[in-house]
Amino acid sequence: MANELQGRRVAFLVAHEGVEQVELTQPWEAVKNAGATVELVSNRSGEIQGFNHLDKGDTFPVDKVVSDVSSSDYDALVLPGGVANPDVLRTVPEAVQFVHGFFEQQKPVGAICHAPWTLVEADVLRGRTVTSYPSLQTDIKNAGATWVDEEIVTDKGLVTSRNPNDLPAFCDKIVEEFEEGKHPEQARSA
Amino acid sequence: MANELQGRRVAFLVAHEGVEQVELTQPWEAVKNAGATVELVSNRSGEIQGFNHLDKGDTFPVDKVVSDVSSSDYDALVLPGGVANPDVLRTVPEAVQFVHGFFEQQKPVGAICHAPWTLVEADVLRGRTVTSYPSLQTDIKNAGATWVDEEIVTDKGLVTSRNPNDLPAFCDKIVEEFEEGKHPEQARSA
Repeated sequence: MANELQGRRVAFLVAHEGVEQVELTQPWEAVKNAGATVELVSNRSGEIQGFNHLDKGDTFPVDKVVSDVSSSDYDALVLPGGVANPDVLRTVPEAVQFVHGFFEQQKPVGAICHAPWTLVEADVLRGRTVTSYPSLQTDIKNAGATWVDEEIVTDKGLVTSRNPNDLPAFCDKIVEEFEEGKHPEQARSA
Repeated sequence: MANELQGRRVAFLVAHEGVEQVELTQPWEAVKNAGATVELVSNRSGEIQGFNHLDKGDTFPVDKVVSDVSSSDYDALVLPGGVANPDVLRTVPEAVQFVHGFFEQQKPVGAICHAPWTLVEADVLRGRTVTSYPSLQTDIKNAGATWVDEEIVTDKGLVTSRNPNDLPAFCDKIVEEFEEGKHPEQARSA
């Protein structure tokens, strides 16, 4: 694969439990294979517990605690899903601020499945067009966004998908958007 | 215990998986001990899978599938929590309509923890004051409600609590509200 993300630093923000494992591992491999430096950022140190739907999967080592890092440290952000994962992250002010910072700094963000709940919490969806796992579409609309039922939605630096079946398209598109770099439109909803 | 709910029929609406088990069993016992007839209503027939946080707990037999019943069949409704439980229910139109019907018919409703997401989906929170698990407070505010951080909130027939620690107060209050019967204010937000 090409090294189109060579020199870029990409954060994966995941709670200590509840992430849909494949939504972490597949984008992680895609971004890493494109040459980026990837870091797992979480609300706690140690290991995070992955899930396959509601069954426990594997654990993964945390590289950085979110309170110790800043969006300034990275070029792009990936938010995997899993119903319990954003449910934790949105209650952690440092995590919400971390996410908000990527939008302020016009940096590209990919969010899949239930992850857009964290974008609701960061209040960065006003006027944006996104998709998500369908259960949270009302929360997304109530947060000021237009919700659409599509495999992949790219809104000027913000990439969203619905579920693990959409991962091939999601992985391709985040690499493309991350390569493009800053998108000034990201800051408009921040 | 007194038989203050003698002759009343109370529905517990729970998804086929993901309910926080203790938020089903304790209110169930409280309402049953007060003399009510209780029924477990779900989106599927068979058994529902209870959870203790993110670990699987016991299973419970479903009495009625939600598409086969109506809010007219019951005097009151209990919505237990668990992060994955309302996440399923809100995607089932018959479940959302079932919940909405209790409000239209001025019937009392108790919802704890993550359950108010189903109330967001039924669009019955405008102008109401509620509590919930804190993670969904933004979704609740965006749905038009006032969110407060209290053990028990009673808003004219709508009883809400935050988490399993609030269960003693929640169980006492739902029995009290269910005994009072219809609350005309419930229909105002329906």
